[in-house]
Amino acid sequence: MTKVKVFTNILKANDSIAQKNRDIFNKNKVYTINLMSSPGSGKTSLLERTIGSLKNELKIAVIEGDLQTTNDADRIGKYNIPVTQINTDGACHLDANMVDSVLDNYNFKEIDFFVIENVGNLVCPASFFLGEDERVVMVSIPEGDDKPIKYPVMFRKASVVLINKIDLLAYTNFNMAKIKKDALSINPHLKIFEISCKTGEGLDNWFDWLKEQVKEKLAS
Amino acid sequence: MTKVKVFTNILKANDSIAQKNRDIFNKNKVYTINLMSSPGSGKTSLLERTIGSLKNELKIAVIEGDLQTTNDADRIGKYNIPVTQINTDGACHLDANMVDSVLDNYNFKEIDFFVIENVGNLVCPASFFLGEDERVVMVSIPEGDDKPIKYPVMFRKASVVLINKIDLLAYTNFNMAKIKKDALSINPHLKIFEISCKTGEGLDNWFDWLKEQVKEKLAS
Repeated sequence: MTKVKVFTNILKANDSIAQKNRDIFNKNKVYTINLMSSPGSGKTSLLERTIGSLKNELKIAVIEGDLQTTNDADRIGKYNIPVTQINTDGACHLDANMVDSVLDNYNFKEIDFFVIENVGNLVCPASFFLGEDERVVMVSIPEGDDKPIKYPVMFRKASVVLINKIDLLAYTNFNMAKIKKDALSINPHLKIFEISCKTGEGLDNWFDWLKEQVKEKLAS
Repeated sequence: MTKVKVFTNILKANDSIAQKNRDIFNKNKVYTINLMSSPGSGKTSLLERTIGSLKNELKIAVIEGDLQTTNDADRIGKYNIPVTQINTDGACHLDANMVDSVLDNYNFKEIDFFVIENVGNLVCPASFFLGEDERVVMVSIPEGDDKPIKYPVMFRKASVVLINKIDLLAYTNFNMAKIKKDALSINPHLKIFEISCKTGEGLDNWFDWLKEQVKEKLAS
């Protein structure tokens, strides 16, 4: 695990750097996701589950984005896959320049699935393309079913919504039909998975979908 | 309930406008809090509980901050107290200019407790003083006990931490001693309350503390 501190140069145009990142991923046929959510929805737990189950089938690597600490990269590092922690030093999102600055840490010929775990924030990360193939947004049951209508930009730009912590459904008044309807009214193309990173429920559907995406990218 | 759309003028200096807001609150002896948290921690539920229990003792008024929708102001409006919804149109935090622009909606001679509920975001709102007496940060059990060390700026600048959804404690591996220790290591002056806005547990301590603050402000 490598720790890199990045100071954002906001003058560099984000999108052109993101496209450069994308070119690297495409050239190497690396399927890349930008994983976003509120703080504490379970992004790192999802990665632990996904790596734990798929690391013999997929060659996985990770960027961890956080304001402070290497906690998340430490958790991922235990799986012996390439991981770099980016500490934003207070910045509320990753940008393409930060991602670009750590890509030399990876041998993309040896990677077919790359995850960029963004800073915990349901607002700002939505505005910054990093070069990913897909944006995956996670929400969790205790956050409530009103997130799509209150934070629509995030859902408009995503391909996938993961609804995590369904093990807590019985203890809340969360309305699953409502959140799905609201999310699809904002973005009819969304693929939605109900999962629990605690019990493992629903994760097989996510794994199957993911393997399909990686296969398609490799065949591209 | 009044809906006002505000377009931020980032050129105006935030802090001087915040001080102007503060002068209005001080002149009228209005005790003001800036309530912040991740999306879905329970800020609006806390306000519903607080207004429901204290509206015969305190003269309460509210600003609701959200990217989109008037959902939260609609919830507060049912209590027949003054409330204004600010929609930030994508901006990730309230700033002092937005708050200033709606203060004419209130008669501060008739208010002694004023709550500004910020946009759901544990990062950006920490950087913008709005004129408040105190900053209150809410975290909830399902978000995990690592929030203070991962989002230290928010906790460094706060006076109070509310740990909400303690009714879900039994279904998680949340470590209460750890989060308190971490929060106090960042800011030894923090006042910490354990609460459940669902069951009501712990709220009396919050109400008592709040009434004391309002009383002190009135006597100032």
